[in-house]
Amino acid sequence: MSPVRIDDNQGSCLLYRDLHGQKPETVVEAQGSYLYLDDGRKILDACAGAAVASIGHGDQRVIQAVAAQMTTLSYHHTSRLTNPAAERLGRMLVGHRPGGLSHAIFLSSGSEANESAIKLARQYYVELGEPDRVHIISRNNSYHGNSIGCVSLTGIPSRRRHFEPILMTHMSRVSPCYPYRYKHEEESDEDYAERLGAELEEEILRVGEGKVAAFFAETVGGAAAGNLTPVPGYFKAIRRVCDKYGVLLILDEIMCGMGRTGKMHAWEWEGVVPDIQTIGKGLNGGYQALSAVLIQQSVVDVLARGSGAFANGQTFQCHPAAAAAGIAVLSIFESDSVVATCAKRVEQLRQALIDQLGDHPNVGDIRGRGLFLSIEFVADRKTKATFPKDLPLAAMLDNAIFQRGVSVYSGFGKGTADGVVGDHILFSPPLNISSQEIAELVTAVKAGIEDVFALPVVQEALVQA
Amino acid sequence: MSPVRIDDNQGSCLLYRDLHGQKPETVVEAQGSYLYLDDGRKILDACAGAAVASIGHGDQRVIQAVAAQMTTLSYHHTSRLTNPAAERLGRMLVGHRPGGLSHAIFLSSGSEANESAIKLARQYYVELGEPDRVHIISRNNSYHGNSIGCVSLTGIPSRRRHFEPILMTHMSRVSPCYPYRYKHEEESDEDYAERLGAELEEEILRVGEGKVAAFFAETVGGAAAGNLTPVPGYFKAIRRVCDKYGVLLILDEIMCGMGRTGKMHAWEWEGVVPDIQTIGKGLNGGYQALSAVLIQQSVVDVLARGSGAFANGQTFQCHPAAAAAGIAVLSIFESDSVVATCAKRVEQLRQALIDQLGDHPNVGDIRGRGLFLSIEFVADRKTKATFPKDLPLAAMLDNAIFQRGVSVYSGFGKGTADGVVGDHILFSPPLNISSQEIAELVTAVKAGIEDVFALPVVQEALVQA
Repeated sequence: MSPVRIDDNQGSCLLYRDLHGQKPETVVEAQGSYLYLDDGRKILDACAGAAVASIGHGDQRVIQAVAAQMTTLSYHHTSRLTNPAAERLGRMLVGHRPGGLSHAIFLSSGSEANESAIKLARQYYVELGEPDRVHIISRNNSYHGNSIGCVSLTGIPSRRRHFEPILMTHMSRVSPCYPYRYKHEEESDEDYAERLGAELEEEILRVGEGKVAAFFAETVGGAAAGNLTPVPGYFKAIRRVCDKYGVLLILDEIMCGMGRTGKMHAWEWEGVVPDIQTIGKGLNGGYQALSAVLIQQSVVDVLARGSGAFANGQTFQCHPAAAAAGIAVLSIFESDSVVATCAKRVEQLRQALIDQLGDHPNVGDIRGRGLFLSIEFVADRKTKATFPKDLPLAAMLDNAIFQRGVSVYSGFGKGTADGVVGDHILFSPPLNISSQEIAELVTAVKAGIEDVFALPVVQEALVQA
Repeated sequence: MSPVRIDDNQGSCLLYRDLHGQKPETVVEAQGSYLYLDDGRKILDACAGAAVASIGHGDQRVIQAVAAQMTTLSYHHTSRLTNPAAERLGRMLVGHRPGGLSHAIFLSSGSEANESAIKLARQYYVELGEPDRVHIISRNNSYHGNSIGCVSLTGIPSRRRHFEPILMTHMSRVSPCYPYRYKHEEESDEDYAERLGAELEEEILRVGEGKVAAFFAETVGGAAAGNLTPVPGYFKAIRRVCDKYGVLLILDEIMCGMGRTGKMHAWEWEGVVPDIQTIGKGLNGGYQALSAVLIQQSVVDVLARGSGAFANGQTFQCHPAAAAAGIAVLSIFESDSVVATCAKRVEQLRQALIDQLGDHPNVGDIRGRGLFLSIEFVADRKTKATFPKDLPLAAMLDNAIFQRGVSVYSGFGKGTADGVVGDHILFSPPLNISSQEIAELVTAVKAGIEDVFALPVVQEALVQA
């Protein structure tokens, strides 16, 4: 190893995400929909972190609830003890058994929740006497987290490439529901949904009947391909195939759930219910690290009849302070009618984006559900041609819009169309964003897009495309 | 699926760890070294959760620091931003470059930290131009967490059994350093250490030179086998073998680190430094969900010279509120001289356990380092025979001692000796536990042990052994 210090990480002791680029800017405060940087700039948080700050920043009702909980009980281990905060949050989420979901496990991150869902699906089938079910099917253009199990699920080549040989082996992927690019011109939504259901069935049969434990999907896609939104009937077709072959349906609603789409759970739009669901991010608006796995009674019953223990205990499981934040956020959802109010903003944002940008020659698609929208950019609207692989258009747009005072989410940079090329930017503002803030958002986005498309390097790429 | 509700999980919406047993008891408050149950009982937290509550419960200095941080900045995404709290905690941990460790990644759980360490070791070798290094070696009787990567590392059969076919394939394990059971009678510590180093070397050669990326070990073992403590020279032998074959040494100090052993890092006892280290639990005393990966400059340099990005971003990475708790806890470590003070308690606890229990016919070994001690129980001190597999002795002891008002940690129940049989209980009290509380601890432990050994079922097991 060379002793020469090639890069001192710009003087920080943190391993930044980008060791080549500029030092990250410093955020010192956040209130409502705004972030405040140390140089005095005020940034509209139009992505709520990454669909996290669902009720905005700095809400004293959450902060006081966390402080009060920490004062009485900050932490305990769950091997023989439970606490009232986690119990209450559990009841708030599944006490009314939404779609039959009856039990919750509280963890600290989305990755942990998806890891637990993988293990739960596997243990379910072991206990059911079907130990051959080792395989999990997920989808291309999907993101499910960063730990080994999650990277094994993910359909983003750039997240997998270093790790491919160490990932789980009994995994495969099918197509996402991505009508803008992959629905045939003559095809109805219904036919497209049926075609994707048939593709899943074919994959289950290829792997082998009785070999597949679960199908894993984001109900509405996140940053991997820009809010891929299922066509009507897609999840019904998927559910039918899953049921036919005894495959558990696991819906990852870490990004799209908890009111983000205008309903508490994104699956409420689909007329299907998952066997296992994962949530996080908006669950407590980022005030504390919290995620959860929600489970059908029928799944719990199999474990209860069998070993009686899901082999998955974690140190910060049911963390009282994190649970207190969750209770406070869900209470604010109710007291402030957050989900109902956000429905009005959804129409405003969608309409404004269409009005202001719908005719832009490089806006290919404006899609999504609720306050969870993306714009996919193309070099040519007719052919849907993407920009060159080496032009980081999404990152350039993200940056230009940030310089205009608005934070959007460009996710994984390239790869919208097929995991390699394609560009989008994503909007996922606080669900309680105001009408005026939405107007500000759209103005800055439009200006930032104009800034980028005026650049010679982008114009050259357009000429070449 | 049968529609019959076999088990309603005792009326709760949480998936408890044990679906067959009693409903967990409810803890409603925790202050200092004590937990308070809803029935009025006061329990001495002699395991600090699971070596988590390093400065005890309810410290207002931490709580106020978290509340203040949340009021200014609760959360932001780290794609282009950093925050002063995470920066400061990073400097506190590695600004002075302990052993050459120079950078930190802050995450939310120990599992996440170990997953990141696996990925970092892998990416390091890809970027170094040695992509064939896909294999990781860990140790039997080890616990590294609950996600797929962590279960792949773990050496506890009961944690692996349901999941074996879905775990990572390029993994293998060698013997832990466990002198009580596996050091030969005539063998010196030095010879035992060399023998274990040779075993690791043999395993590296079996896998293939240039194929192994990392060796993963808890510096002092946790609950898997009861505080397995390295003999002098063990880690030096390991480090030598790792260096010879270019294998990264990853030390998991999630449970044993952060002052628990009487030094800030458990590797300070060993005269070696890891390439990558993971910490958690005691890092912020459980006030917030927080873990970290600490990294040598030499590892960072390879990424900085290469792709410039560790493909591992997480939503709650560098969470400001969690970082604020970490800063407060480390400040208390300094202002209250926590580690220095705990050294006095270490001797008191160890001596009291030896005085009170050292002659007990079923106490085989009292071991550990710092305020991180275990008692291993045997049916026969001479032969070191274990109790029958179907007698849950450790759980019975844990329960009896809890009934005497003290919470100890029996970890994974059985498996101390070889992953299947053997029983121990573990003590990991708050580092600032008082002298009087230690006396109380030992009295209750002694009484609880007497309670259990008076039971006919245990006496019968002894007769049969």
